[in-house]
Amino acid sequence: MFRKISDEIMLHGTCYENLRVLTKNIGHRLSGSPEAAKAVVWGEQAMKDAGADKVWLQAADVPCWVRGKEHLSLKFGKGKYRTVAALSLGNSQGTDGKLLKAQVIMVHNFDEFKALPESAVKGKIVFFNYRFRQDLINTFNAYGDAVKYRGSSPSIAAAKGAVGVIIRSMSTGKDDFPHTGGMHYTDSTHKIPEMALGNITADALEKACEQGTVQAKWKSECRMLPALAHSYNVIGEIKGSEHPEQIITVGGHLDSWDVGEGATDDGAGCVQAIEIIRAMKALGIRPKCTIRAVLFMNEENGDRGGDAYADSAKSKGEHHVLAIESDAGGFSPRGFGLVMEQPKKDMILAYKNLFLPYGVYDFSMEEGGTDIEPLNNKLHVPLAGLIPDSQRYFDIHHSDNDVFENVNHRELKLGSVVMAQLIYLVSEHGL
Amino acid sequence: MFRKISDEIMLHGTCYENLRVLTKNIGHRLSGSPEAAKAVVWGEQAMKDAGADKVWLQAADVPCWVRGKEHLSLKFGKGKYRTVAALSLGNSQGTDGKLLKAQVIMVHNFDEFKALPESAVKGKIVFFNYRFRQDLINTFNAYGDAVKYRGSSPSIAAAKGAVGVIIRSMSTGKDDFPHTGGMHYTDSTHKIPEMALGNITADALEKACEQGTVQAKWKSECRMLPALAHSYNVIGEIKGSEHPEQIITVGGHLDSWDVGEGATDDGAGCVQAIEIIRAMKALGIRPKCTIRAVLFMNEENGDRGGDAYADSAKSKGEHHVLAIESDAGGFSPRGFGLVMEQPKKDMILAYKNLFLPYGVYDFSMEEGGTDIEPLNNKLHVPLAGLIPDSQRYFDIHHSDNDVFENVNHRELKLGSVVMAQLIYLVSEHGL
Repeated sequence: MFRKISDEIMLHGTCYENLRVLTKNIGHRLSGSPEAAKAVVWGEQAMKDAGADKVWLQAADVPCWVRGKEHLSLKFGKGKYRTVAALSLGNSQGTDGKLLKAQVIMVHNFDEFKALPESAVKGKIVFFNYRFRQDLINTFNAYGDAVKYRGSSPSIAAAKGAVGVIIRSMSTGKDDFPHTGGMHYTDSTHKIPEMALGNITADALEKACEQGTVQAKWKSECRMLPALAHSYNVIGEIKGSEHPEQIITVGGHLDSWDVGEGATDDGAGCVQAIEIIRAMKALGIRPKCTIRAVLFMNEENGDRGGDAYADSAKSKGEHHVLAIESDAGGFSPRGFGLVMEQPKKDMILAYKNLFLPYGVYDFSMEEGGTDIEPLNNKLHVPLAGLIPDSQRYFDIHHSDNDVFENVNHRELKLGSVVMAQLIYLVSEHGL
Repeated sequence: MFRKISDEIMLHGTCYENLRVLTKNIGHRLSGSPEAAKAVVWGEQAMKDAGADKVWLQAADVPCWVRGKEHLSLKFGKGKYRTVAALSLGNSQGTDGKLLKAQVIMVHNFDEFKALPESAVKGKIVFFNYRFRQDLINTFNAYGDAVKYRGSSPSIAAAKGAVGVIIRSMSTGKDDFPHTGGMHYTDSTHKIPEMALGNITADALEKACEQGTVQAKWKSECRMLPALAHSYNVIGEIKGSEHPEQIITVGGHLDSWDVGEGATDDGAGCVQAIEIIRAMKALGIRPKCTIRAVLFMNEENGDRGGDAYADSAKSKGEHHVLAIESDAGGFSPRGFGLVMEQPKKDMILAYKNLFLPYGVYDFSMEEGGTDIEPLNNKLHVPLAGLIPDSQRYFDIHHSDNDVFENVNHRELKLGSVVMAQLIYLVSEHGL
């Protein structure tokens, strides 16, 4: 059956075509946007086309952040102002469309910033030039190391009177794509704007700051709208034949940032989850447990979909056996992160050799997924996070580089294969 | 030191920039072509820039196959002739620039062809519509399964009077790129031409053959030139500090087919080998054994470079401890294929846990590399073949899709890292 699942998906899988439709016909789909609403309609139909026994929408109200127009130009020393590729960070406040003109000062990290007197910061734009570490082999470790600069810099800088923050993108790219992503204000009274630069511009700015004075002109309209918007998780289900009350969830998130096409993050996870429903139906598998594919809404800036799913499960007293998420890209799978007690880990580790021919060997990490974490936090549901090869992820993530063309059809399918295999094992033999 | 090697290459590696120069300034470089000659000059300089103690060229005369102009158009049923994307297979004879007009008949495999009477084949073009198997997870297994159709079909078809052969490309691609590659005539008196189609055109031709008659117009000029051309392997060496007479070779091949840019096949292997020299020098490593980076010439259609290297080693009585090749793409490494006796395998397997953090876990295959095989055949040198992730290789291989943009900088470097690490271990501790 392991092999049959693989053959069905590798030979007849529709996930790649589904991803083409999602990315090319709808494109990016930030929570609360018209595209996100279209994606919900698309997801509902795709679940039906895959043959789910039951498809429904689960309400989740979501925050609405809008980018609007934005512009950053920099003047190096006695040069001219030059417009640079830059992206406001998600959830950040802009300049209300007004011109912000200020000097840029550079620090390399929070320690350097802390050492600066208030007088050096007041009225300035602070460039947090912290490099995404290319020496860490697992790029998610480099992300974990650097992402605090994206998330926390504005409130830290504002406390000393800074008027804006520029960061180096969370990017491994040898290019100039700026990468957006979520940030948050810890101090809601001094919301200064934040923008990210691609690595090439960041290198140039670094050099310019070392050599002389840098001035910036900054205009942006981004803001968080005051009201939440109605939105939904999309759920498709195959009813269990022996233990219909025991649920295995597999999902990705349907929302994306408002750049690129949200192909790798996380259209891939969505179409992989739908593919599992399709393949099981095509193979005539009648799983003992109920299998649910879930397209979660609002992973990027609120986790409202993941919370709504867990809250519903809790209020209904549902029994969730396992939840799996694919939100690390549609790349060749290498393992599963396991968030569960050791005896359950041992059950999965006993299957290790079955997975080896599919390139899956690493079960050592404790990784679930943002959308399924509430199931673990609120109901102690065991989690498994798909671990694909991580080398390319942060070239792509949250940037205009996140397009369909950067997903490979075989790698995408293979991720779906190994999740379907794990689900089959757990459905047949329990956990 | 394992970590230092990794940091040096991941942070300061020049292999990606070297690959950019090789692919963008020179491009593809078929044996005997002016581009191959330029690549030799480039390789010599790149070895010097990397800091090799000694750089030299090793003569290897190579066959010269030239493509010239080529054209294939197909008429499906009562439709019009339509030009299709097609590539003559390497080493094949064309139509001498004359128009070949004939009916196309389809078979799915050699068994079907054998069952046909001569009368059904005589004067026809045979379409060997054998699919590259997408169900095999290791795509090199699918290549091994299908490549006989590329290599042997023309002589088999000519024996029954066929006038040409069309094949479905050795391609996993969901696209219409035709893929070239080596073929050979077993019968030198009836050299009929052979062309490959991309998967989309092959699908259309399949359908047309099922529904009615297909006619082809075919013109091509490709041919093997009568004389060999002078060419060279490029060799760069770090002299061993304790056992200079013990040699560890690492290489890729410098020649490519005459399409795309030869980035994945095998510019990647070349720049990875050069990178190992650069990194060892940059780190001040004085290896106990002599390390040789070799850019082999003529892997694609003659293996003259690999033969010349082994012949030279034999005639000089050189002691080769290990030879490593990277010729399966610059993708994330997953393992090493080992061609050696079990006690030597066991020595390498003892290092397995050291490689795990770098994603290298699979030492189960017996794979060396075409260029280093003569060392094993003639001198019983142990071989190690780098095993990268195989999912994308046959989307790219031998086609216009084999360009720099389809190589990822981190994946490329990581391949170099793990080869450098293996070399370091063997140089320090023997094999």
